[in-house]
Amino acid sequence: MTTETTPAATMRWNGWGDPALAKDLPLAVRALLPTVLGKVHRPDAAVDLSDVRIAASALTADDRAALAAIVGDAHVSTDNETRIRHAGGRSTIDLMHRRATDQDAPDAVVSPAGHDEVLAVIMLAAERSIAVVPFGGGTSVVGALDPERGDHRAVIALDLRRLSGLLHLDEVSGEARFLAGTTGPEAERLLAERGFELGHYPQSFLYATLGGFAAARSSGQNSAGNGRFDTMVTALRVATPTGEIALGGAPGTAAGPDLMRMFLGSEGILGVITELRLRVHRLPESRIHQGWTFPDFATGVDALRQVAQLGTGPTVIRLSDEAETGIGLAQHGKIGKALSKGCSAVTVFEGRPEVAAARQALTERVLTAAGGRSSGASPAEDWAKGRFGAPYLRDALIDHGVFCETLETATVWANIDRLKTAVTETLRAGFADHDAKSLVMCHISHVYPTGAALYFTIIGNLKGTEESDVLAQWDTIKSRVNDTILENAGTISHHHGVGRDHAPWLATEIGDGGVRMLRALKTELDPTGIMNPGALLAAPQAG
Amino acid sequence: MTTETTPAATMRWNGWGDPALAKDLPLAVRALLPTVLGKVHRPDAAVDLSDVRIAASALTADDRAALAAIVGDAHVSTDNETRIRHAGGRSTIDLMHRRATDQDAPDAVVSPAGHDEVLAVIMLAAERSIAVVPFGGGTSVVGALDPERGDHRAVIALDLRRLSGLLHLDEVSGEARFLAGTTGPEAERLLAERGFELGHYPQSFLYATLGGFAAARSSGQNSAGNGRFDTMVTALRVATPTGEIALGGAPGTAAGPDLMRMFLGSEGILGVITELRLRVHRLPESRIHQGWTFPDFATGVDALRQVAQLGTGPTVIRLSDEAETGIGLAQHGKIGKALSKGCSAVTVFEGRPEVAAARQALTERVLTAAGGRSSGASPAEDWAKGRFGAPYLRDALIDHGVFCETLETATVWANIDRLKTAVTETLRAGFADHDAKSLVMCHISHVYPTGAALYFTIIGNLKGTEESDVLAQWDTIKSRVNDTILENAGTISHHHGVGRDHAPWLATEIGDGGVRMLRALKTELDPTGIMNPGALLAAPQAG
Repeated sequence: MTTETTPAATMRWNGWGDPALAKDLPLAVRALLPTVLGKVHRPDAAVDLSDVRIAASALTADDRAALAAIVGDAHVSTDNETRIRHAGGRSTIDLMHRRATDQDAPDAVVSPAGHDEVLAVIMLAAERSIAVVPFGGGTSVVGALDPERGDHRAVIALDLRRLSGLLHLDEVSGEARFLAGTTGPEAERLLAERGFELGHYPQSFLYATLGGFAAARSSGQNSAGNGRFDTMVTALRVATPTGEIALGGAPGTAAGPDLMRMFLGSEGILGVITELRLRVHRLPESRIHQGWTFPDFATGVDALRQVAQLGTGPTVIRLSDEAETGIGLAQHGKIGKALSKGCSAVTVFEGRPEVAAARQALTERVLTAAGGRSSGASPAEDWAKGRFGAPYLRDALIDHGVFCETLETATVWANIDRLKTAVTETLRAGFADHDAKSLVMCHISHVYPTGAALYFTIIGNLKGTEESDVLAQWDTIKSRVNDTILENAGTISHHHGVGRDHAPWLATEIGDGGVRMLRALKTELDPTGIMNPGALLAAPQAG
Repeated sequence: MTTETTPAATMRWNGWGDPALAKDLPLAVRALLPTVLGKVHRPDAAVDLSDVRIAASALTADDRAALAAIVGDAHVSTDNETRIRHAGGRSTIDLMHRRATDQDAPDAVVSPAGHDEVLAVIMLAAERSIAVVPFGGGTSVVGALDPERGDHRAVIALDLRRLSGLLHLDEVSGEARFLAGTTGPEAERLLAERGFELGHYPQSFLYATLGGFAAARSSGQNSAGNGRFDTMVTALRVATPTGEIALGGAPGTAAGPDLMRMFLGSEGILGVITELRLRVHRLPESRIHQGWTFPDFATGVDALRQVAQLGTGPTVIRLSDEAETGIGLAQHGKIGKALSKGCSAVTVFEGRPEVAAARQALTERVLTAAGGRSSGASPAEDWAKGRFGAPYLRDALIDHGVFCETLETATVWANIDRLKTAVTETLRAGFADHDAKSLVMCHISHVYPTGAALYFTIIGNLKGTEESDVLAQWDTIKSRVNDTILENAGTISHHHGVGRDHAPWLATEIGDGGVRMLRALKTELDPTGIMNPGALLAAPQAG
């Protein structure tokens, strides 16, 4: 029943993506940097993978044998390279940690082949007090993949990419059942062969897995048309330390609370998603790209709000602020070149030709009446071409000694300006406190009838003799930003997730009651607390 | 800050709606009945409210005084009429129970005025082992309002209709904050004054409360355009026996699992929803009605599927099967008159004139290509006029000795035919086993990209010397139908909910794992189990 699958590409161990595609900074960006940040000191070269030192695996020979009995000897790895490659995600913090000689790593990487093996591994781990960090594409940017042991004597990374494949496609209902370790591109390839598309394109698309999208409540760039990933999931199969759970299935239901939702956003603390049923649609027959310019961000925000509230139907709609527009950040291949005035926006429309055309016409009417001016197809086409390129640029900036990170939140339309201003000012002040120049850029990345997501890109000239100095400075800045977000009615994350980095702020956002609910579920499903300890819920009380 | 509110109308104690609007059977229906059901025996007249006997209240004088200290003496009622009026919902089972002289009733009806009073009442109830049944509009049709004590020494109905009013309207974001006891019409009146609409119109609309819509995961007739009620809720405030919980707020978030969802569909077993923030929209400037006919149900289903999957944007889209079309059930004022061929459908489009027109044009193109023929505006206008009338017809049928009930489910498009056939056959066979003739009618009431809801209306000539005989027969039929639904990949309820009637089947649908999750949440929030015992979760194990 499983369709054949291609293996996921291996990412650069200490940076983003395909090592062959890593590039030095574009000349235009190099020319810009001194103007924006002043003189930047290029750090020492990063450490080689073979020179990294990690502690010996804490697993006993008996642990290894017991794990191998489940998944096969070839699928329990304790070699340094495999362990280092599963030592975390791809936040700037992660990447800077990987420049050091001494690093943390899981005690082993275990790669089960299917649901039953996942279940057997985590039940064994619970019995032996071994923590388990579920590992999909390795693209977390919030510390969800740190090899944290909690109270346990060892920790394994559970690499889920052998659970790959399309199990069933219901072409009539538009539903596809996948193994959860299937990557974004592999899922789209398997669907496209049958004329279908999932249409979920977050920045992590090329590496992340479907299970990861679900566990982290991902939201793709096409969310205006296709919805957030959590709205695409119609059923789930989950392995927990206390057994299997299968939930969902009806297109709509009033059969009690939607318990399936407790696994969407659970980031591995309740169990491991092994299979998903997802809403899919026919490959769009046509696609219309259209760029826009607005005199200023406030005018653009109001225009996007009208589109979202009237429901005119773009698949993609995004708006860059003045700073981001000035740098041309949204058109990745042309960064530093397109110093246009005002704010640029991108729209894409999809569907049957007459449907896409009707959506474009309605949207154009609304955006024009709201003060926008069409800039033709090319800015939107350029955006689409470069949409997965930004992380390579970050790697190059870090190599040049420029601190670069992104963060994001969401709020209701009436509060967008207040939240954006507060976050921007906190960032600027934070860098200034460390005598660092900075550039803060922002765009609206996702829209809803009631509000939108704000996505910030920050570059700054944080100085330090070692990565740890720079990270300590960023930590104080980020903490202040997180406080600012919650004080200004934002959510701690719109789509990056919580992981360990945001866990203390999640507790504030959901309150004592929310924490109690989450802990009650965790205690029921994972009574020994082996599943991804420290993610979502900060370390439990001593004892 | 609260806008003034009008009190909710009092419903007929032993039937639906406004007693002044109760009508005898239309002549056309009376003429039809013998053809369909044969000879029907009209039962004895129903008992008068003043002749109903209930047990004396189990509350002590001290209980009463303690409750009165919180809500005021006028808001603790132990008189028979008030208790009887809060003794259950409005299912056919409920209404037939109310024809008997001896009835169950809660020991008191307590009417708190706001969140703090609700919290104080349920904390007191937890301390004194008094069960609490939250009571909104009293429109449950699944036994969610039965005065069940569980292990406790008494039970009170917590009437929430004094928590009425619009607390805040954010016109920019399109969000309204309401007290949870506000009824549907009152909410729409308060919003319309400001040019806004919630647009949630379930059959219970005229009486049900916003908190009830949320607690039962209601789905309105306009759900194709406005979404299910659970998608309209953006934030909640809840009183639980262990304190207040406030969740939600962001238009989209990845801040852990969506814990707020655990209260949507919780039917009062975790706590009482006291305030809600809801997505609202500007009152539609235009509305286009259009009726359709299809040669048969399968053709109509395929046409509706295409509309839902292409996203052409109707606010309402419904399709009656041949039996329902033949009776004209969808056009309430014309029942029994419109014996048209094939299957009729109804569409309504809303929005700004150009938006509504574009949606209508796209939908017409798809429905026509799929084999539909427009029947003009009037069938859809007739449907809209009569949309809240059906429950009055049921009352009249019951008075005439005709058993009449509705039930509903949902499934994916590919499974619609199998599920509809299985449920229809089980119903027919069930009535036949009791030597009863029956008529089973069905319509598609709600559509989604991946599937649809099937709504069944059944009339049958169940015979018995007492109501309890008839109900015992229906109980065996309904049990078989519930089994059939789950065996054929349907959900136990698409929008009526679970209550006590569906609780055993909910356990099958969500499995042991789902039940464990729900119990873990209940144990955490309501450790003494006072909240609506027996709803959702069948009675806990003895001990």
